[in-house]
Amino acid sequence: MLRDRILAEKPEEEELKSRLKAARDRLAARQMKIKEHRLPVLVLLEGWGTSGKGSTIGQVIRNIDPRFFKVASMEIIREEDRRKPFLWRYFSQIPEAGKFVFMDSGWMDEVTRARLMGTMDDETYDRRIAGIRRFERQLTDNGYLVMKFFLHISAKEQKKRICELKDDIDTRWRINEADRWQNKNYKKCLDIFDRYLDATDSPAVPWYVVDARSRKWAELQVLETLTEGIDIAMQNRALAVPVLQNVFPLVKMPKLCEVSLNGKTMEEEAYKTELKRLQKHLGELHNRLYRKKIPVIIAYEGWDAAGKGGNIRRITEALDPRGFEVHPIAGPEPHEKARHYLWRFYTRLPRTGHIAVFDRTWYGRVMVERLEGFCMENDWKRAYNEINEFEKELSDWGAVIIKFWVHIDKDTQLERFTMRQNTPEKQWKITDEDWRNREKWDVYEEAVDEMIQKTSTSYAPWHILESVDKRYARIQALKIVIDELEKVL
Amino acid sequence: MLRDRILAEKPEEEELKSRLKAARDRLAARQMKIKEHRLPVLVLLEGWGTSGKGSTIGQVIRNIDPRFFKVASMEIIREEDRRKPFLWRYFSQIPEAGKFVFMDSGWMDEVTRARLMGTMDDETYDRRIAGIRRFERQLTDNGYLVMKFFLHISAKEQKKRICELKDDIDTRWRINEADRWQNKNYKKCLDIFDRYLDATDSPAVPWYVVDARSRKWAELQVLETLTEGIDIAMQNRALAVPVLQNVFPLVKMPKLCEVSLNGKTMEEEAYKTELKRLQKHLGELHNRLYRKKIPVIIAYEGWDAAGKGGNIRRITEALDPRGFEVHPIAGPEPHEKARHYLWRFYTRLPRTGHIAVFDRTWYGRVMVERLEGFCMENDWKRAYNEINEFEKELSDWGAVIIKFWVHIDKDTQLERFTMRQNTPEKQWKITDEDWRNREKWDVYEEAVDEMIQKTSTSYAPWHILESVDKRYARIQALKIVIDELEKVL
Repeated sequence: MLRDRILAEKPEEEELKSRLKAARDRLAARQMKIKEHRLPVLVLLEGWGTSGKGSTIGQVIRNIDPRFFKVASMEIIREEDRRKPFLWRYFSQIPEAGKFVFMDSGWMDEVTRARLMGTMDDETYDRRIAGIRRFERQLTDNGYLVMKFFLHISAKEQKKRICELKDDIDTRWRINEADRWQNKNYKKCLDIFDRYLDATDSPAVPWYVVDARSRKWAELQVLETLTEGIDIAMQNRALAVPVLQNVFPLVKMPKLCEVSLNGKTMEEEAYKTELKRLQKHLGELHNRLYRKKIPVIIAYEGWDAAGKGGNIRRITEALDPRGFEVHPIAGPEPHEKARHYLWRFYTRLPRTGHIAVFDRTWYGRVMVERLEGFCMENDWKRAYNEINEFEKELSDWGAVIIKFWVHIDKDTQLERFTMRQNTPEKQWKITDEDWRNREKWDVYEEAVDEMIQKTSTSYAPWHILESVDKRYARIQALKIVIDELEKVL
Repeated sequence: MLRDRILAEKPEEEELKSRLKAARDRLAARQMKIKEHRLPVLVLLEGWGTSGKGSTIGQVIRNIDPRFFKVASMEIIREEDRRKPFLWRYFSQIPEAGKFVFMDSGWMDEVTRARLMGTMDDETYDRRIAGIRRFERQLTDNGYLVMKFFLHISAKEQKKRICELKDDIDTRWRINEADRWQNKNYKKCLDIFDRYLDATDSPAVPWYVVDARSRKWAELQVLETLTEGIDIAMQNRALAVPVLQNVFPLVKMPKLCEVSLNGKTMEEEAYKTELKRLQKHLGELHNRLYRKKIPVIIAYEGWDAAGKGGNIRRITEALDPRGFEVHPIAGPEPHEKARHYLWRFYTRLPRTGHIAVFDRTWYGRVMVERLEGFCMENDWKRAYNEINEFEKELSDWGAVIIKFWVHIDKDTQLERFTMRQNTPEKQWKITDEDWRNREKWDVYEEAVDEMIQKTSTSYAPWHILESVDKRYARIQALKIVIDELEKVL
């Protein structure tokens, strides 16, 4: 029961005052440590209507330099939000390293509200809860401190507050229908809230139920708990995080060396006819996708000079330009590096009915970042599961996920590199880095094999495109895309 | 839904055979690694009646040297079990470092059975789930690999199996009423199982739902998942585990230096009268405790020569010897060291209605083990929370927990040490180690302060006994024990 979760009894006024002062000073002192240790802190305030979420945030932030925090008010869900995965609007708002984000209501409010309104069935609810648990755990695993507070008041207190607000002409606007409804259906709300808190209470991201009868007391509880949380997060900062066992259904995939590249060719004439036919078909499917609001994500990875660019073009040529976007992915910008490595992909997700093509992807984590030491061993080892979770979220959203590994052998690459070098208008396509990567072919191959084995889930399997003959690969890609889309149309 | 949790589709017979052979060999190879790395592995097999839990275990263990595993069949709950905390019978059975324990049914079976029989209310269920989550997490945090399998068959398959067993006179004994009942109430069971799996699915200890239609296929799934789990646990072996934020209500306690020892004395005459009166009263309470089946745990910690022994004696003198036991705690034996550090305390818990007095306790973890380096920094830092969780389990069970810190100052200790040294019949009570510990008084004091601050929960607070005058301390102890017992009688 919510009531029983409250951590502490309200102290005497005198003690409250002195502890409040101490707690404010402590938080003020912590902000420099947070900056110095690059700790990102996400503070979520949920609670009853009129429990004082906004004013508590207002009090707490008075102790922090405005450069170090952001307040995100999440109550209003825009049309744009509805066309993205459930967690998108929250993931987009996560703080960068060394900063606070305070959220006034969040994913709990969204889920429990839908439950109360009866617009979310049991199955969706269970899926949301599972997704939320993964989301909160992933943030923590990636060095975030996530603090969740629930501001609790009794039905009687809530009623009193609504009346007081109503009686004052200056504050009347602050009570809304939802607050009144909550108060009338307090028991029902209590039950839904309780169940949600139970389902999402985890060791690393526990719920803190705050006794919000008094403003100052609520502020003190948040301040003290937050500061303690920061101290513990600092202690845990340097620790590696355990790799989790796989819990997603995997599809058996061959190793790259087992994929035969022989005879995977196509005559020019047949290619042209087939290309035309398939592109026309894909164009039609795109319209139907759009009408059915199904989001599609096509991810391209592959060897340098394997023909990713040309392959992508053959797909996009078939599509209505208003309904797709291509995201070429290079190294992360500083503001991207300061956040969870999936953040820059989360923020590039398509809207429902749209297609996003990624030219290189989040799999950089387990290839280039792994091999060039841009992340720690512990980070890329964890990433297989994190990526499977990310794609599960997309799949739960209803997205079609198609992942291509564009495959050639080492000799073919050398041929193409040499050709590029010797063709003035193609020289921009070849850099010293490409040659350096080529020297690491074997370790890359090992990493690619591990990646394909560990992330070919039933809901987002890899497809290997044999691309020694680029025409063959393009036709294959079109066929696979069409196949996957037809499954859902 | 259970059905949807199944990890993989059954492969062709040919592939199944070759994978089975490979998986058996791999597990056989792992057992030496497990021994070498001292990894303890707890494998829990739950599932429908007639799903083949026993025979699957039988198959799996054929690949392991009998010195390295134990099979624990937990289905039958004995009277003794009912007089201990819920998790006691499972905690008692945890493997030692480097060995396997296979459990045929376990805590899931116990909880869901009670749910199905309607003998467990919602509140108890929620408490059990919370306890189970903590239990599984604590094992993992302390280096255990816990693998949970649920063997799933359809209602139709179960019915078929029951009929087949019934038709054969040799196997008829193997079907029990519970299996028949389950089959008749399959939907209801499915719902309860599903909810339980959801509630206890955690990232580090996920559920694996095994498609148990075919024996061999079930065996293969268990073997492959188990081996993968072992490999991942080996990888994670060296990692430190994050310290968790406190989620238990704490009582504000003074630091030792703030506790005045002045004037806490008692005249001999008054002491004698009071002692007699209190002991008589305690004796009466003990009888009532016994009848009401309330378990009591009294934990003593304190400075060397503070007077713990004499204090304990004044308590036990008042008690019926059939209803209490005193556990003097020294360093752990090798078989104790090979298990979770709380194991030796779990196995020493009293039965309901009994009193257990611990002369030194599990708090050794955050005092002597911390200061003498017997455990890692990460271990004792985590222990505050682990101990709060342990005591929460005891408190949920209904136990009264009374914790004493027997307190003196440094001068008093010196006086008593010198006295002991100079009194031939008391010389056994003083060792070189006592003198060495005395030199570390300041660091010990710091550790004791931290311990008292962090583990004085509302359900198991510390009591500081001022013991410069031992008589005063004894009377205080008796009063506190009586007070705490009266609260529940």
